[in-house]
Amino acid sequence: MRLATIRTTEGTRAVRIDDDSAVELGHPDLGALLRRPGWRAEAASADGPRHALTAVDYAPPVPSPEKIVCVGLNYRNHILEMGRELPEHPTLFAKFARAQVGAYDPVVLPAGSDAVDWEAELGVYIGAEVRHATPDEARAAIAGYTVVNDVTARDFQYRSPQWLQGKTFEASTPVGPWLVVPDEADTDERQPLARELTCAVDGELMQKADTGDLVFDPAALVAYISQIVTLVPGDLIATGTPGGVGHARKPPRYLTEGSELVTRVEGVGECRNTLVRG
Amino acid sequence: MRLATIRTTEGTRAVRIDDDSAVELGHPDLGALLRRPGWRAEAASADGPRHALTAVDYAPPVPSPEKIVCVGLNYRNHILEMGRELPEHPTLFAKFARAQVGAYDPVVLPAGSDAVDWEAELGVYIGAEVRHATPDEARAAIAGYTVVNDVTARDFQYRSPQWLQGKTFEASTPVGPWLVVPDEADTDERQPLARELTCAVDGELMQKADTGDLVFDPAALVAYISQIVTLVPGDLIATGTPGGVGHARKPPRYLTEGSELVTRVEGVGECRNTLVRG
Repeated sequence: MRLATIRTTEGTRAVRIDDDSAVELGHPDLGALLRRPGWRAEAASADGPRHALTAVDYAPPVPSPEKIVCVGLNYRNHILEMGRELPEHPTLFAKFARAQVGAYDPVVLPAGSDAVDWEAELGVYIGAEVRHATPDEARAAIAGYTVVNDVTARDFQYRSPQWLQGKTFEASTPVGPWLVVPDEADTDERQPLARELTCAVDGELMQKADTGDLVFDPAALVAYISQIVTLVPGDLIATGTPGGVGHARKPPRYLTEGSELVTRVEGVGECRNTLVRG
Repeated sequence: MRLATIRTTEGTRAVRIDDDSAVELGHPDLGALLRRPGWRAEAASADGPRHALTAVDYAPPVPSPEKIVCVGLNYRNHILEMGRELPEHPTLFAKFARAQVGAYDPVVLPAGSDAVDWEAELGVYIGAEVRHATPDEARAAIAGYTVVNDVTARDFQYRSPQWLQGKTFEASTPVGPWLVVPDEADTDERQPLARELTCAVDGELMQKADTGDLVFDPAALVAYISQIVTLVPGDLIATGTPGGVGHARKPPRYLTEGSELVTRVEGVGECRNTLVRG
């Protein structure tokens, strides 16, 4: 089941994406839907006004999540190829909700940066409140998956010891186009451990990895973060990016005005965004 | 003018703190009040149900701010005494809203940490939406000031290159008791550049500094952050802590069950919190 938040002339609407139409679910966005205890069944059976998919304008699936938790240094091969040891604990940082844009929206180049880079990631949405989650509780708290590009202003990221300012520029982070809710019966799908993750810039493949290569997989991240703070419905975890970013290339490669950024997770979805000046 | 959010049997209420009573302002919390364009005049003139100050239970002034932006390495004397150079740019990191507790609430010791430390700070609330703020716009966007203790689990802070996980434990960060709104006419008060900031643990003075020693003062922080992302009413900036934290002492000193933490900013207010096990 695919769920999204779309923009209409009357504001945003939570929808289910069927084969040829988006069906309104009676909530302003997926954040409101996910806060309802029986949201899976409600979303599967709801029937409201329909929108042709060709005319749909996708907002970020959860426009105002309480938290966006990002993970660094989480792809095994990339860590090992850099000669580092695998980390014992995840590296966590935050991003503010205003950094988000929809799957096909323009991405605004951070003003003052000339080192804007891509970071394709698997995104994980929370669908139930959890604190001190066991592994089983953590798995059950995952609503599903999305596609994220943690677009980063490298110069701002490295201005100080903390990365936040390079990571949270307004309208810089594509998320979407939808939340893919795994079939309840499909235990493999509930934990997508072997999905191809790619990032292409102007048609050139820049990143290609397998989400099975994550050091801390989605359930492990949910369990870990929930030891620190309560995760609530609508929270988004960006699980980290593999090798192939522009900053590490020789010479470095960056995004500029007009760059076409395509971020894809096999079986989840694809974001296609054009870089624009603010 | 002092404004606060108090807990009542019917939920939280925004109030003005008068000499002997808290006067309800007709909003559920200060976040709702601050989103109203004429909030200063409205708060000054509103008259609603009154609560005796002796019976008031203070919530964090803005229980659910859109953003909490924290600043590291921002006290000049402390940076110089450590032999470092003054930074060219602020160090910014985030804290999630659930980390907050009220000015007299218990502070929950982060489970799994045995290195819980204090960080007394001046807090700055935003009272108007700003993006790419000039210095004047930045000053005008400041609603006022509060007291923050950025209680930190040092072991979690240093588990990875990013500090977030040591900074955002649930119910660990005292904020309050109120927002002090400077008199419009008092330009000195709008930029409190010489206030004594102190932190005491079990009656022993641990930190003492002057907020005039900030490398990046409140208006400079608002201007800088607004280059990255829109600041909105209710956003909180924790401006950084001076020397005297427990982790840097020889031997190190930490907070434990029953510790009494008193955080004070002259002319702003005081938080008094007891450390408890979760």
